[in-house]
Amino acid sequence: MNYPVVVDVTLRPGIADPEGATIERALPALGFAGVRHVRAGKTFRLEVEADDETGALAVARSLAERLLSNPVIEDAAVRVESR
Amino acid sequence: MNYPVVVDVTLRPGIADPEGATIERALPALGFAGVRHVRAGKTFRLEVEADDETGALAVARSLAERLLSNPVIEDAAVRVESR
Repeated sequence: MNYPVVVDVTLRPGIADPEGATIERALPALGFAGVRHVRAGKTFRLEVEADDETGALAVARSLAERLLSNPVIEDAAVRVESR
Repeated sequence: MNYPVVVDVTLRPGIADPEGATIERALPALGFAGVRHVRAGKTFRLEVEADDETGALAVARSLAERLLSNPVIEDAAVRVESR
């Protein structure tokens, strides 16, 4: 069966996020004064063929750690997407 | 009150995704034969000060459309993140 999986890659706490910081600096001038703590991340959506959800998530987790993220500075979370 | 909001930016259906295609091409050689339809996207996490959840989402949606995405080729979805 094919499972739709989302891999969410975020910077670890404490790692500098220049993209988020740049967005945050631009916000007051654009009228978004109440928005803070902007952090940028990446998301990958993929279909994993597996016998069950647990198997699909295991494949996705291995893929996320080996290929889609840099474990030194990033965390990767996987979940099956509800359709 | 501060609401933690996630802005999920994805390429619209039919828009070419070179990053996703490159990852997909590399998968068989790395032992991930059962993984298909890789699509890359961006995620922004931010805190929005608002009176209620509806207000926070409205601010985030406006921000997502004006600043965080290109509406010609991308869709933006906003949600309040459960803690």
